[in-house]
Amino acid sequence: MKEASGNATAIEFWYEFASPYAYVAASRIEGLAAGKPIRIDWRPFLLGPIFKARPHDSSPYQNPSPAQRRYRWRDVQRLCHGAGLPLRTPSAYPRNGLIAARVALIAIDEGWGPDFTRAAYRANFAEDREIGDEAVIGAVIAELGRDAGPVLAHAQSPANKARLFAQVEAAVARGVFGAPSMLVGGELFWGNDRLEQAIAWALAPPHLPPLPQAGRLA
Amino acid sequence: MKEASGNATAIEFWYEFASPYAYVAASRIEGLAAGKPIRIDWRPFLLGPIFKARPHDSSPYQNPSPAQRRYRWRDVQRLCHGAGLPLRTPSAYPRNGLIAARVALIAIDEGWGPDFTRAAYRANFAEDREIGDEAVIGAVIAELGRDAGPVLAHAQSPANKARLFAQVEAAVARGVFGAPSMLVGGELFWGNDRLEQAIAWALAPPHLPPLPQAGRLA
Repeated sequence: MKEASGNATAIEFWYEFASPYAYVAASRIEGLAAGKPIRIDWRPFLLGPIFKARPHDSSPYQNPSPAQRRYRWRDVQRLCHGAGLPLRTPSAYPRNGLIAARVALIAIDEGWGPDFTRAAYRANFAEDREIGDEAVIGAVIAELGRDAGPVLAHAQSPANKARLFAQVEAAVARGVFGAPSMLVGGELFWGNDRLEQAIAWALAPPHLPPLPQAGRLA
Repeated sequence: MKEASGNATAIEFWYEFASPYAYVAASRIEGLAAGKPIRIDWRPFLLGPIFKARPHDSSPYQNPSPAQRRYRWRDVQRLCHGAGLPLRTPSAYPRNGLIAARVALIAIDEGWGPDFTRAAYRANFAEDREIGDEAVIGAVIAELGRDAGPVLAHAQSPANKARLFAQVEAAVARGVFGAPSMLVGGELFWGNDRLEQAIAWALAPPHLPPLPQAGRLA
């Protein structure tokens, strides 16, 4: 875990390319942090392995009720409308974010991580492109003016695959169970809806004691 | 469904006494609506029968991962802190909201529904009292200066039990799958986090087309 540089407080931004709420959050976070002593630490990961480890595989993402499924996309539509983001409800959901996450790790190292992240989200949620295909991710890289071949070769290397696996383990170790998630110090915030709260916490954490009686909770 | 009176727009507020997020929303909604041409239509209901009908009984409320369970109460603590609401994390969760919901129907008829609703939520989430017990609900009624006996007798009558059952059916018919939920016309909003959005929608609905391609979504 990197430390905040200078006086900036780090917000770890954990995101999964399959998540429409992470699309909204990834598109909003830099605007919300602009001009504030905050450094965003982009953390692509995968939710699939975390959901598989849940009791009864009871993910609200994987097993929503039909009513909740209908609601979710309307909710995303309203959020995109409010944030001025394009949305074309995808013809496949959830799409596999594996290759995009591997590329994102490389792009972050090289300084174009946020640009790639937003471009891959747009491909998925505004352009209805199959981001699970390496060829589509290659095209997204090329549209950013980069040579896709070497990037994909690096992204698909055993070392980088292991690195993404370790990133998922790190998410689990932090208690991350959904996306997007923000971590400020040890404080976890889940969802695009908590972005503002996470930023406020980074600027001035409130005096809030640890949760009492948590051990007694069902 | 009642119509808005005068020029006020109705917001149906659907709530379940087991839900800590509904506690927060029930405590905030009147303050947010104050001074605006909005009428709040209080709609107690039960989530249990709705969750039971879900595929795989995969409710995120009933089957959260341990990490999500820990997170939820911290999240509720932060929200209560921000809203100035007392919280004592309950020693039992979720508590059965059946009797409280039956009483709420009577109280709404008689004009003390919001007061009873907030008092029952406080009993559950600020005072750690077992609201599933009729005696506890009787005490809550008495603390509001009312004679609990006749209210409870009325609440537990076959006609009122049937009425709550019909209320749950009405929730399902509207696509409600969680609590709190707000309905403005046909527009559904889920969660304490959507309270502000629901109120903004009631005052001036945006020009937002129906969700495209929804039939194609997984």
